[in-house]
Amino acid sequence: MAGGKNSHSLAQQPVTASTFVGSPSAVGTDKPITSMARVGRGSAIAKIVGRNVQQFDHFDNEVKMWVFEEKVNGRNLTEIINTEHENVKYLPGIKLPENIIACPDLLETVKDATMLVFVVPHQFVSSICKQLKGKINPQAKAISLIKGIDVCDDGFRLITDMIQESLNVRACMLSGANIATEVAEEKFCETTIGYRNRGDGELFREIFHTPTFRVNIIEDVVGVEMCGALKNIIAIGGGLVDGLKLGANTKAAIIRIGLYEMRKFTKMFYEGVKDETFFESCGVADLITTCAGGRNRKVAEAHVLTGKSFDQLEQEMLNGQKLQGTSTAKDMYNILIKKGLTHEFPLMTTIYRICYEDLPSIKIVEDI
Amino acid sequence: MAGGKNSHSLAQQPVTASTFVGSPSAVGTDKPITSMARVGRGSAIAKIVGRNVQQFDHFDNEVKMWVFEEKVNGRNLTEIINTEHENVKYLPGIKLPENIIACPDLLETVKDATMLVFVVPHQFVSSICKQLKGKINPQAKAISLIKGIDVCDDGFRLITDMIQESLNVRACMLSGANIATEVAEEKFCETTIGYRNRGDGELFREIFHTPTFRVNIIEDVVGVEMCGALKNIIAIGGGLVDGLKLGANTKAAIIRIGLYEMRKFTKMFYEGVKDETFFESCGVADLITTCAGGRNRKVAEAHVLTGKSFDQLEQEMLNGQKLQGTSTAKDMYNILIKKGLTHEFPLMTTIYRICYEDLPSIKIVEDI
Repeated sequence: MAGGKNSHSLAQQPVTASTFVGSPSAVGTDKPITSMARVGRGSAIAKIVGRNVQQFDHFDNEVKMWVFEEKVNGRNLTEIINTEHENVKYLPGIKLPENIIACPDLLETVKDATMLVFVVPHQFVSSICKQLKGKINPQAKAISLIKGIDVCDDGFRLITDMIQESLNVRACMLSGANIATEVAEEKFCETTIGYRNRGDGELFREIFHTPTFRVNIIEDVVGVEMCGALKNIIAIGGGLVDGLKLGANTKAAIIRIGLYEMRKFTKMFYEGVKDETFFESCGVADLITTCAGGRNRKVAEAHVLTGKSFDQLEQEMLNGQKLQGTSTAKDMYNILIKKGLTHEFPLMTTIYRICYEDLPSIKIVEDI
Repeated sequence: MAGGKNSHSLAQQPVTASTFVGSPSAVGTDKPITSMARVGRGSAIAKIVGRNVQQFDHFDNEVKMWVFEEKVNGRNLTEIINTEHENVKYLPGIKLPENIIACPDLLETVKDATMLVFVVPHQFVSSICKQLKGKINPQAKAISLIKGIDVCDDGFRLITDMIQESLNVRACMLSGANIATEVAEEKFCETTIGYRNRGDGELFREIFHTPTFRVNIIEDVVGVEMCGALKNIIAIGGGLVDGLKLGANTKAAIIRIGLYEMRKFTKMFYEGVKDETFFESCGVADLITTCAGGRNRKVAEAHVLTGKSFDQLEQEMLNGQKLQGTSTAKDMYNILIKKGLTHEFPLMTTIYRICYEDLPSIKIVEDI
């Protein structure tokens, strides 16, 4: 939800910084294990971009952030953000730079912007792209921070592909071990940007990289994106192992096998995916973080400890919201069944069956 | 400390199973975070080998285990093991198969054995090899389960190289996320065998693989072995981050960067090392386990929380025993300094400086 206006560029690369974040910005995204509260990934990232663009001459100083308007204590959230420089609802206690301008109007936000940063729940991407079609700067470049994939009749579609195809722009992907609250508190972490065009990767690196938010770039959009989607399945496995109290060796084995299946799956469905990507923050590091904390792990652990179904636990623990891990497991399983490949992915298949076919949780180690 | 006798082979491959385990068997090896007690890696692994050899015709049923003799409640430990089938001192509560024969005499243990399993503290390897020289079956194959390297004047030497050169046998390497107590309790885990000769790798796989101790084999002895040595340095980093309370993103970043530097270091010093090895249990999984538990992590955390030096903490927490992580960090740093390579390994270098040069712990994220 941020869009920079006035593209008066001073340097070679004419760019208006424009972050673009959905609200409620964290539906279906990561959060620390200690809290089930929603956290504002979009605001956390806008804080970084807002500061970084001021350090380069070739970026417009103003960063517009699209905010789905809502009332907080009788006031508009955008007004609060623009006067108090804090997203009191989704990232309370963290000051945003004053050059972050919250804007409730989507088209107004992206007007003239040449860099579009997508941080919205993945189910909103399609309708947002429809609204944006033909309305964005033809020079614009996009980057997605959305962890998830879009399931369609003939399989699935990457979010970056949806953005590229519907808006006719090149899209990068940013993903990593980046729990939003810790990013906002400026605790050291890393992230990965996958690019198709190196210049795009380097440009986006400039608006995201800080000493405590280290950006590596790699020529592999698909690998970076698939890591972000598939890790949630493995986190269910991590939670099952925690619930079963199987210990540190077993947990590490599930993470390792999970990383292996993520890599094998991605390379089976896409050409040009790099092994190296899985050594990056988007791969092994994000998987470790997600299996250590996060709601997928937490609900799966509760499944073992209480014997309740995932459906019931989603009602009780998540107000009926669906876990990304279980739904992605189902989507992937449907693809594997269709292609006759379940035997090649025993971990993902077993996780699906535990979630949806009442398979006992202990099968997580017996059937893989 | 186990040596099989009587090589009456019934199959193509004439082999006498002979495990060979030092005692106190766990000096300098892993143990779970919840306990500082020594655990018997050798006995845990002998339990597996003892059962497995009975399932194949081409192994001698008897497995000899060399045990450094000591008195427990007035009785010899070997006698207790051979009558009660339990290593009451180093792996209490776990029954050993009856075909494990504890033997206090090193040369008697290895007599006729064609498979030698080394599970001793790494500082004992050199003297053991001297005693064994010329006394072993010329057909023997060896495998090392020893996590550590031998530092010498011109750098360092792999334990498998020491065994190969001094005994004139081929040596494999087994390493993985294998906390001994969890292995003994038959909780699911994985491990990796690195081999030079595929037949050797497959043969050793037979005596180690079980449904709950899954063995993958890979043609990369050096990679497997270096992972086991270098991970302890990174675990110091993990402990520092825990002490600093930097959160899950940071911990995952340190593990990721650690895995990267382990791989880069190993490939820089040896040819033929495979990236794939670092995706195996010996690589990413063992690193995760070691950074989650283990005494290197624990003492490093205490260093931050108490402000005490590592020397002092080793006195207080480990009865003066030296941590493998700090000593390996020093060994590697000396090599990096000599070769002018410290800038290429900022994490290992910073960990060394925190341990030995009073660098503040926060530099773990500021200097890398």
